[in-house]
Amino acid sequence: MSVPAEALTALGEILGDRLSRSKSDLDLHGQSETWFPAAPPDAVAYPRTTDEVAAIVRLCAAHGCPMVGWGVGTSLEGHALAVRGGICVDFSRMNRVLAVHPEDMDVVVQPGVTREDLNADLRATGLFFPVDPGANATLGGMASTRASGTTAVRYGTMRDNVLGLQVVLADGRVIRTGTRARKSAAGYDLTGLFVGAEGTLGLITELTLKLYGQPEAISAAVCAFDAIGPAVDTVIQTIQMGIPMARIEFVDAATAAAVNAYAGARFPEKPHLLVEFHGSPSGVAEQAEAFGEIVADNSGAGFEWSSRPEERTALWTMRHNAYYACLAARPGATALVTDLCVPISRLAEAVEETRADIAASYIPGPILGHVGDGNFHAILLVDPRNPVELAEAKRLSHRMVERALRLGGTVTGEHGIGMGKLGYMEAEHGEAWDVMGQIKRALDPQGLMNPGKLVRGD
Amino acid sequence: MSVPAEALTALGEILGDRLSRSKSDLDLHGQSETWFPAAPPDAVAYPRTTDEVAAIVRLCAAHGCPMVGWGVGTSLEGHALAVRGGICVDFSRMNRVLAVHPEDMDVVVQPGVTREDLNADLRATGLFFPVDPGANATLGGMASTRASGTTAVRYGTMRDNVLGLQVVLADGRVIRTGTRARKSAAGYDLTGLFVGAEGTLGLITELTLKLYGQPEAISAAVCAFDAIGPAVDTVIQTIQMGIPMARIEFVDAATAAAVNAYAGARFPEKPHLLVEFHGSPSGVAEQAEAFGEIVADNSGAGFEWSSRPEERTALWTMRHNAYYACLAARPGATALVTDLCVPISRLAEAVEETRADIAASYIPGPILGHVGDGNFHAILLVDPRNPVELAEAKRLSHRMVERALRLGGTVTGEHGIGMGKLGYMEAEHGEAWDVMGQIKRALDPQGLMNPGKLVRGD
Ligand SMILES: Cc1cc2nc3c(=O)[nH]c(=O)nc-3n(C[C@H](O)[C@H](O)[C@H](O)COP(=O)(O)OP(=O)(O)OC[C@H]3O[C@@H](n4cnc5c(N)ncnc54)[C@H](O)[C@@H]3O)c2cc1C
Ligand SMILES: Cc1cc2nc3c(=O)[nH]c(=O)nc-3n(C[C@H](O)[C@H](O)[C@H](O)COP(=O)(O)OP(=O)(O)OC[C@H]3O[C@@H](n4cnc5c(N)ncnc54)[C@H](O)[C@@H]3O)c2cc1C
Repeated sequence: MSVPAEALTALGEILGDRLSRSKSDLDLHGQSETWFPAAPPDAVAYPRTTDEVAAIVRLCAAHGCPMVGWGVGTSLEGHALAVRGGICVDFSRMNRVLAVHPEDMDVVVQPGVTREDLNADLRATGLFFPVDPGANATLGGMASTRASGTTAVRYGTMRDNVLGLQVVLADGRVIRTGTRARKSAAGYDLTGLFVGAEGTLGLITELTLKLYGQPEAISAAVCAFDAIGPAVDTVIQTIQMGIPMARIEFVDAATAAAVNAYAGARFPEKPHLLVEFHGSPSGVAEQAEAFGEIVADNSGAGFEWSSRPEERTALWTMRHNAYYACLAARPGATALVTDLCVPISRLAEAVEETRADIAASYIPGPILGHVGDGNFHAILLVDPRNPVELAEAKRLSHRMVERALRLGGTVTGEHGIGMGKLGYMEAEHGEAWDVMGQIKRALDPQGLMNPGKLVRGD
Repeated sequence: MSVPAEALTALGEILGDRLSRSKSDLDLHGQSETWFPAAPPDAVAYPRTTDEVAAIVRLCAAHGCPMVGWGVGTSLEGHALAVRGGICVDFSRMNRVLAVHPEDMDVVVQPGVTREDLNADLRATGLFFPVDPGANATLGGMASTRASGTTAVRYGTMRDNVLGLQVVLADGRVIRTGTRARKSAAGYDLTGLFVGAEGTLGLITELTLKLYGQPEAISAAVCAFDAIGPAVDTVIQTIQMGIPMARIEFVDAATAAAVNAYAGARFPEKPHLLVEFHGSPSGVAEQAEAFGEIVADNSGAGFEWSSRPEERTALWTMRHNAYYACLAARPGATALVTDLCVPISRLAEAVEETRADIAASYIPGPILGHVGDGNFHAILLVDPRNPVELAEAKRLSHRMVERALRLGGTVTGEHGIGMGKLGYMEAEHGEAWDVMGQIKRALDPQGLMNPGKLVRGD
């Protein structure tokens, strides 16, 4: 128990019944989506304002008590687990869209707004926020993990789409980073520093985000390939040709089978590409035609594009549920989700070697991913009660990580470090990891913000 | 003199005649492009390798001697002036393109490569590096100032186009940030931290940059307006409609006149927009048509687009020389160059108020800029021997800065802080400026990297 009683009393005075110590609340905030053992906080705080967050942080700082932010807990590397106890700061009550500026195509939101709620809110404006990690994550969580997803190939990741932040620092100071101008050369890029910091440098209490006009025309398509090779080659050639794909997603035969079983889809049990085009009607037609030629050259089948919204929605819902479909393919299983990202020219090697590795193991591991960015995942399905299986999944994951580095890539394209990738920071960054530690110590000398994540432990 | 003799001796042993103390060299590296008083270094070092840079830095660190990086010295806020003396590290001998990866559309360069040399080198690959500050700056300098320019509206700034860096830190450690993967969620964004740091956190010795395919079709156009209002409204409407302009530049009547006089052009002496479209032939036609309609709605004249490369080259050469044309318009003058950037919806106000302010002053101040980003400059022309004029220019500049902040923008869209904007950091960032200071002290506790710039002085 890392929170002294007097701190809890003081927090209770600030938050009333928005400070919870109920078992169900602690359990809920002590779990992750994947294989990590539970690690509940000592209490869960539900602030409603930045001032309340600052008050919580000041109290925790005074009592030396860890603080862990919480969006909706969909991060995949145990990011939000309270491994040293402390206060979980759940942002679900800070879920208001504060200002929409259609004339500047930006929006100001509280961190607990989810991406689906944001886009529902924006519908009438003709604008949308593109970053789409599949899960209905919060904007605060997405910024903190530097999330991306299906549309990053066209619209970028959270790195590219956050204009500014309000952040409560480890000592309770409240700062603003960035402005509503589209670019700035005014000093260090603090916005970029807090995006991807996984809550280890401060708590984000407000975000200003870029928006985009709904494309005049959208169309989507699916095509099947006889083998992984030609599917991946199609991706590489498409990216190298500069076709401005809005989405280009890969699922392997195992994923297709899992989705069929889970969602009653009827994909041939083969590798597929799922794609989307955004633009003017003629632009979309041009892109689809150019892409179709590459598909044909690679003997892809069934390439047909459709502009019908229902069909598109069905397609992307299926894609977004692919993770749960894979989990359901092995009842009772939990997942170790890998996240390698390589330069596009090395994608075929990376996928092929991974596939061969998994085929030679007894662990099921469907492969899917945002291949337009050179990014893909194997969802390694293990029995949570069987340490031998977990060890085997970690061995496969370790080989993927080494592969990513050998091919000039990164150990995590989008999921982040959390606890799961901590052991690879040194391999990827060398002494630059120490530099991250220096920044961490400068801004959080007590080491209270999400301890045990991202930076080297004591 | 802030460099002890023994340090100079030791540096001379490492660099031989690539350590210079000649008066001409010190003078050259003690000047800036604008109004700042000269501030020469004690010596100029011309390293050829990262190891040499690291050796220089270790020696300077051991002797408490300031270090200032130097690209080609085109920065506009006195960035590279050696205000505390020390060693100027001139990167002109580190000017090799180290590796081109056309299949991944990236390139690895030394910091002294200029953008024109890089693009000349790339020509055969069909790829290009888009960031274009007009001046033939170095990539190391451009990264350090977070430069942008005419094409940022389409391709982004240096923030968006640097994938990774090699950096020599203040204590001589050499780190790498980033990988060749297109995205990563692996820890703090150190690449983003060093981009825009103006050499205050370390010296950049290598950069990995994104490249783009030469567009299939390019066409450019010029159009004149009777007043600034409709020209700026055209820009706002174009951006809000989402037309993917490759460039959209504004020059006012005074700039047009200066360019006519300097380069023998024949622009009507009116406000103009200079634009460029990139895409497929039909895409370019579609964009030009949509833009043409907006121009017509705003009573713009002479909108004609041309795909002839000679015409385009002539147009952008003229635009790039506009700064020198303005300087020549007042013989003997030096410039105070302002650099405000606001949300696009506030651009008309920002330009109009600035124009009115300048009109009411006796200082000539042609206005031009990268208006698609909400960014523009007034080039305030002053007699360098007349302190009253300089004070008046500073008053006008001060009002522009306040305007930028009032309108939700930034005091510098692209030129950076250097010394010239130091006095506005607090106004723009509040306590976030202190956070920058904390980072600076963590990474450069002796304060030797480009002292007197960007962060709060002691
Ligand atoms: C089915 C599924 C599919 C997914 N697909 C993708 C994908 O395609 N791309 C992708 O990038 N990710 C994906 N993810 C992972 C996950 O959705 C992202 O990591 C997401 O950004 C997490 O958001 P969250 O709101 O759930 O954050 P949480 O998991 O609650 O928190 C994530 C981290 O951010 C911190 N944090 C949360 N809020 C704040 C705040 N306001 N201030 C400071 N720190 C805070 C937490 O402490 C934690 O370290 C997927 C997950 C699932 C379950
Ligand atoms: C005519 C004209 C037009 C311009 N137009 C634009 C424009 O449109 N957009 C724009 O953004 N800028 C513009 N500028 C400003 C200037 O070109 C940019 O600031 C450019 O990035 C400076 O590059 P440089 O190589 O000249 O760097 P320098 O001026 O030599 O140095 C700039 C800063 O970077 C540091 N530095 C240089 N190299 C390194 C290194 N390797 N490692 C660490 N620190 C280093 C220096 O210490 C200094 O602080 C213009 C300038 C002129 C003269």
